[in-house]
Order: sequence, then structure tokens, then C-alpha cells
Amino acid sequence: MSNKPSIEVCLSPNMWPLFDARDKTVVVIDILRATTTIAVAFQNHIDKIIPVETIEECIAYRDHDNYLLAAEREGLKPAGFSFGNSPFDYAGKDLKGKTLILTTTNGTQCIKKSVGAKNIVTGAFSNLDSVCKYVLSQKDSCLLFCAGWKGQFNLEDTLFAGAVCDRLQNDFIMMQDAALAAKLLFSQSEDYLLDVIKRTSHYQRLGRFGLEDDIEFCMSMNTTQVVPLYKDGALILMN
Amino acid sequence: MSNKPSIEVCLSPNMWPLFDARDKTVVVIDILRATTTIAVAFQNHIDKIIPVETIEECIAYRDHDNYLLAAEREGLKPAGFSFGNSPFDYAGKDLKGKTLILTTTNGTQCIKKSVGAKNIVTGAFSNLDSVCKYVLSQKDSCLLFCAGWKGQFNLEDTLFAGAVCDRLQNDFIMMQDAALAAKLLFSQSEDYLLDVIKRTSHYQRLGRFGLEDDIEFCMSMNTTQVVPLYKDGALILMN
Repeated sequence: MSNKPSIEVCLSPNMWPLFDARDKTVVVIDILRATTTIAVAFQNHIDKIIPVETIEECIAYRDHDNYLLAAEREGLKPAGFSFGNSPFDYAGKDLKGKTLILTTTNGTQCIKKSVGAKNIVTGAFSNLDSVCKYVLSQKDSCLLFCAGWKGQFNLEDTLFAGAVCDRLQNDFIMMQDAALAAKLLFSQSEDYLLDVIKRTSHYQRLGRFGLEDDIEFCMSMNTTQVVPLYKDGALILMN
Repeated sequence: MSNKPSIEVCLSPNMWPLFDARDKTVVVIDILRATTTIAVAFQNHIDKIIPVETIEECIAYRDHDNYLLAAEREGLKPAGFSFGNSPFDYAGKDLKGKTLILTTTNGTQCIKKSVGAKNIVTGAFSNLDSVCKYVLSQKDSCLLFCAGWKGQFNLEDTLFAGAVCDRLQNDFIMMQDAALAAKLLFSQSEDYLLDVIKRTSHYQRLGRFGLEDDIEFCMSMNTTQVVPLYKDGALILMN
């Protein structure tokens, strides 16, 4: 038997109870758009991101100069929030010294579910290579956790999981069917990811809100070089 | 908007609570091997198949000449059963007038979960064309229910779901990500399905028991022309 660590994919939060993450590195994936936005915020020097589950928890952090409150529900920014779940809300801004309080429909909930794993990071096409390098450096087995949409499987998160499997296939045991499927889907689509995503329900949903530019950005590889690491209730930049 | 019915894929029993099957045709899929075996048993003139959840329920039907008891757990036939979950247990036999009482790890449980759907049939590569023709004739939306393995996603059930999506894509709305992914996986693999399956965990698991011939048979298309329909607690042959 090989001594290589294994790599597996959890295709949706509904599958999460089937996995044991205790000795593993978990990569939380919510391409459209939470984990993409998180990568961009760190690339623009945010100090810290605190993921919270409800709008109410988020609002509880108001009245502090260094806190930026950000929320998304059903693909939209709720009334009263100046920051949402779009990477363009954070691009080109200097966020040094700020803490972002972030709640989203799917991604932030999965970060919370991952608590108990050996290490938790967030991954997106925006930081694909950096995340792969981190996972490899840990030498632990890896669990790629796709946030999906309200429990349902989605294609963009699975394609990203497939990208990680593709990049790490020589260094990890990859026997799980979900990992094989994700890798097959990615290998087949690598050169036209955006075209594949344009056929999905999520594209239709966000497209209605004029978010085509967001989606194009979210499907672009390695626009940042950050690894957001979840530790003691907050995401911080991995050094 | 189109008036076509929709086609969706449920990738595992853990995703089942996310779907509403009431007005739909559900196709239960457990390629290795329950729904393949069911197709072969009907091709060999079995009268009726009663799916039961536990070994104990199965044994309760003993001592009746027309009942054949069949069980599978962890890929094996439990002690005391003369029929298991292999299609070869039924091939070449005349099963006319017999009723099969069948319990398996995954497939029969999914038939039970589907109760409440408008129509429930079982599908396998063995009866692909017949099932597609039936689904099309019903003109209802269709939910392809992959049994997976103990809640986990598996590739062979998803590939079959993809085959149905591929055959019916012009007659149904296919917007759901899981259906798109299943179809992409199948289209890519259609000409070498068995090679893809040889890489999976399930193949390794069953291969240990010398079941390579079973698997090759289970991945072969249209070896039967039956549609097993679940009605009043039993599978019967759709006329």
C-alpha cells in the first residue's frame, strides 16, 4: 500500500455527515462567490474575515470603524449593507487594518461545518495554485468541500475540486468516485470553463442580476496568491 | 418558457430530501447490482419482486414454494441465501410464477424512499432504452435517483443518469447542474464505460470478490427490454 495521503471530494453540505475531517485539511469551496471574494479581500490586505451565519450576527458588529459588514442572500446584497459577496466590492481598495464580517447563503455556513478539521482553508480559481501548494505542504489527507447551492450539487464548485485533484493527482491517492468524477469533469472543460458555467442554473440566477462580470472573474485562475486559513473563529492570511 | 417537462438527477440518498417527487417519474438506479439484477429477473419472467429493507423482513417470507429469497450485504450474499444480487443468479432460469423477495445495501432502500412519487421504475444499462421510452411516454418531469454507496456518490449510477439525460435531452428541460454534470461525464465516457468503472472504489470492492464478470455485464447496454414498475409494494413488469 502507498503511504500517500488521500484526496476526497464532498459534493454538497448534505453529504458532509458522511466524512470524518479530523485529521484532514479541508478546503471550503464556494466559487460563486464567497471564496473568490475572500481571496480578493486578502489580496487587498484585509486583516481578518469573520464568517457568521446570520444577518443578525453580522449586524451585531456594527459601530466599529475597523469592521466592514458584508452580506449576501439569494445572490443579492440585503438592504443596508455597503459590502456584498462580489469580488469587485473589494478589488482595488486598500483594506489594511480592517476586519470583514461576512455572511453568505452557502460558503460561510460550510466554514462553520468544517470546524474540527485539522486545518481549514478556503479555495477558489482565484487562488488555485496557492491552495494546491498549501495542501501539498501539509502532507495530510485532503477533503474538498463544495458548498453547492442550498444543499444541491453545483458544477462550478465541483470543477474547482476537479482542478485541485488534477493538480495533485501524483501526490495523493485518488480513489473516491466523487474525486474521479470531479477530475474527469475538469479535465474535459479546462479550456472553456466559462462556457460550461454559462449553461448552469447558477449562471442564469446571477445573470438576472447583471453579474456576468463577477462570474467571468470567478472562473479566472490565479488572480491572487493568498491562502485564507480559518483559525479561532476568523480567516487570516496564511504566511 | 418551454412547456417541456424537466429532468433532474439526485446524486445520492443524502440529497433526496431536497427533491419533491410527487408529480414526477422516479427512476431508481443501482447499477452494481440491484437494478441490473431486477431487469434480468424480469427478462427471465419473474412474476413480481418485493423489495424489503432488512434481512429479517426477507426471511419472514420463507416456507413458500413460489417465493425466492435474495439478499446482499456489503457486496456479498449472506449465509443461508441461495439467491443474491448477481444478475447471473437469475440469467438463463425460468422464473415464471415466482416472486422474488429482495434486500440490498443501497438499491432497495431507495425504492422505499421514492414512495409518494407519481411513478417509480428501476433503471440500469441493461434496460436503458426501454426506460427512456417509458419516461418519454409519461410526459411527466423525471427524477433520476442514484442509489450510490451508503449515501456516497458513485460513478456508475451517475453515468447511467447521464445516459438517460443524453438520450432525452431534446425532449426535456435539462438545467440542473447535477443533470448537466452527469451528461458531460457520460458523453465523455460512452465508448469506454467499463474502463472508467475499473478505476472506481466499487470495482475494487466487488473485484475482491471475483465479480469482474458481473460488473462487465452491468455496464452493457440493452441486454433486456423490460420496465420494472413499483406499485402497491412490489415491482411488476410494465406492459
